[in-house]
Amino acid sequence: MSLAESVLAGETLALARLLTRIENDTSEGRQALNELFPHTGKAHLVGITGAPGTGKSSLVNRIALQLRKPSETPPRRVAVLAVDPSSPFTGGAVLGDRVRMRDLSGDPGIFIRSMATRGSLGGLAQATAAMAQVFDAAGFDVVLIETVGAGQAEVDIARLAHTTLVVESPGLGDEIQAIKAGILEIADILVVNKADLPGVEKTERALRGMLELAHPVERVFLHHGQAMSVHAPEKENATLWVPPVQRTIATSGAGVAELVALIDKHAQHLHQSGEWGHRERTRLEVELELLIQGTLLERFRSGIPGERYDGMVDRLVRREISPGEAVDELMK
Amino acid sequence: MSLAESVLAGETLALARLLTRIENDTSEGRQALNELFPHTGKAHLVGITGAPGTGKSSLVNRIALQLRKPSETPPRRVAVLAVDPSSPFTGGAVLGDRVRMRDLSGDPGIFIRSMATRGSLGGLAQATAAMAQVFDAAGFDVVLIETVGAGQAEVDIARLAHTTLVVESPGLGDEIQAIKAGILEIADILVVNKADLPGVEKTERALRGMLELAHPVERVFLHHGQAMSVHAPEKENATLWVPPVQRTIATSGAGVAELVALIDKHAQHLHQSGEWGHRERTRLEVELELLIQGTLLERFRSGIPGERYDGMVDRLVRREISPGEAVDELMK
Repeated sequence: MSLAESVLAGETLALARLLTRIENDTSEGRQALNELFPHTGKAHLVGITGAPGTGKSSLVNRIALQLRKPSETPPRRVAVLAVDPSSPFTGGAVLGDRVRMRDLSGDPGIFIRSMATRGSLGGLAQATAAMAQVFDAAGFDVVLIETVGAGQAEVDIARLAHTTLVVESPGLGDEIQAIKAGILEIADILVVNKADLPGVEKTERALRGMLELAHPVERVFLHHGQAMSVHAPEKENATLWVPPVQRTIATSGAGVAELVALIDKHAQHLHQSGEWGHRERTRLEVELELLIQGTLLERFRSGIPGERYDGMVDRLVRREISPGEAVDELMK
Repeated sequence: MSLAESVLAGETLALARLLTRIENDTSEGRQALNELFPHTGKAHLVGITGAPGTGKSSLVNRIALQLRKPSETPPRRVAVLAVDPSSPFTGGAVLGDRVRMRDLSGDPGIFIRSMATRGSLGGLAQATAAMAQVFDAAGFDVVLIETVGAGQAEVDIARLAHTTLVVESPGLGDEIQAIKAGILEIADILVVNKADLPGVEKTERALRGMLELAHPVERVFLHHGQAMSVHAPEKENATLWVPPVQRTIATSGAGVAELVALIDKHAQHLHQSGEWGHRERTRLEVELELLIQGTLLERFRSGIPGERYDGMVDRLVRREISPGEAVDELMK
C-alpha cells in the first residue's frame, strides 16, 4: 500500500509520516500529494490569525473541543495545523505542541500538527497548503489553520482558508488597532478573546468602527438608513456577509459555542451565495502560484554552477555590477 | 540629468519620485537602481522589529532625533523606512506617516518614507532592499528600517540590515516571550521599551533567559565561570558580540542616547571583527535571491497565455489534476 493509500485508509501513523515528508519537501511527499489531491475539496478550512498575546492557541483548542462535542450535529473530525512564521529556527512550535497535547490528547477525532518556518519566502504557505490537502483527503471535516503573528505571511496563509477568523483582545493598546486596518479586511469573523478583561467594550467598538471603513458597502447601508442595523441577523442575506464580532473567553470556554455556530453559518453562507466555489478557485490559484514560484527557483538554482553564482555575489559586493544587472546576466 | 543623477546631487524631490518608481516597480526605477548601485555600500542599515504594541514607531522617531543632535559626533543624515507587511491594502502606512510628520518634519537631515505591502511574497522585501540602496546612494548615513509585526516577512527584512534591534515591552503577557524564541536569534540589540511600565524587570529577565538559549556560546561562558558576567563590557571582544539589553522610554526619550551608542558600537564591532563584510555579502545574496525570484515568476507568467493558465486552474478546481502535476505541465 502506498503512503497515500494508507492515509486514505485512516492510518494515523501514515498521516504523521506523510506530514513530515511534506514538511521536508521530499519527492515521496510530492508523489503522495498528487495521489491524494482527487480526494480533496470536502474539508472546511478555517484560518485563525491575530497578534501575539490574544490567546489564539487556547481559543483554537476550545474550538476543536467544541466541534467534538456530542451536542454538535454532527460532531466533526478536526485537524489543527499551527503555523509559526515568527519562529525561523526552533522552539515556538515545540512549546505549542506540548501545551496543546495536555488539552486535546486522547481524542482520536482530533489531530494536531505544528510547523515552524520552512526555508524562505513562500515555502511556509506552500507547505501549509499541502498539509491542509492531506487532512482534507484523510477525511477531516474541519482544518483549523492557526498562524502566530499578524504579518504578510499570515495574510498569505489566510488566503488558503475558506473562512478567516481574526482574533483581538482588549488591552493591547491603541497602536494595534491602527496596524490591523489591513488584516481586518481579510476577516470573515472577528473575535474579541479575553472578553473578561477590562476594555472589552472599547476594543469591540474600535473593531466595529474599523469594519465600517473596511466594508464600504456596509457604510452606505448605515448612512442611508439610520434605523437599519446591518449587524442584525435579518439583514444578512445570501450575498452580503458582514463580519460579525464575537466575544470569547478561551480560558472558560464562554462564547466558543456561539463562535462555532458563526463558523458554520459562514460555511453555509459561502455555499448559498456561490462564494465557496469562488474562494476554492482563489485558494487553488494561490497554491499553484506558490508551487510555481518554488519550482522555478529550484530549477534556476540547479542550472547555475555554485561558483558562477558565488562569483556574481563577489562582483555585487565589489559594486562592479548591480543586482538587476546580475539577474539579467544569470538569466542569459 | 537622469533621475539617478538628480538623487546623487541631493535633490529631495527626485529622491521622493524615485522611491515611488521603485514602489511601483517601473523600468525607470530599475534603471535608476542600476545607476545608483556603485554609489552604495556606505550607509549603516539598522532594522527595527518587534510585536505591535511595543512602541516601535515612537522609538524609531526618537532614534532619528538622537542621531541628528549636535552632541552626536558627527550628527548624521537619517532615512526612516517604515515597512508595514500587515497592511496589505491601505491605512496603516498613511496613518504612520501622519504621526511621524508631526515629530520629525522640518529637519532636512531626516527623510521619512513608509511602504505597505507590494504585491505578493518577496515583493516587499525586494522593494525594501531597493529603497535602502537609494537612501545609501543619496548619502544618508543611517537607514532605519522599521517593520511592523513579528512574522516571517520581518525576519526576511531583518536579513537586509547590518544591525537588527528587536523591541519588546512589559505587559504583553507570557505568550509573547515564547513566540519570540525565533526572532530573538536574529537580534543584535534587544530593547525593552516602555520601561516605565510595571513588569519591566520580569520582561528583561525573560529576555536574558532566552538569550542564553539563543546564544549557546554565552551559556558555556556562564556555566564555566560563575563569576564572569558576559554582559559586562570588558568581556565583549572583537569576535564575540553578546546582544545587550537596553531599556528605553520612547515617550520621554530616556535610554535613547545609550541605545544609539550601542548601535554605533555594533557597527564598530562589525567592522573590527570583519563581520561587516560577511553581513554585506549575505545581504546582497538575499537581495539577489529576491530579485531572481520576482524575475523568474514574471517571465514565467508572461510566457503563458492567460487562458491556458485559467484552464489549468479550472482543472484544479475539478480535481482533474493536482497542483504538482499542473506545475509540471505548465513548465513543459
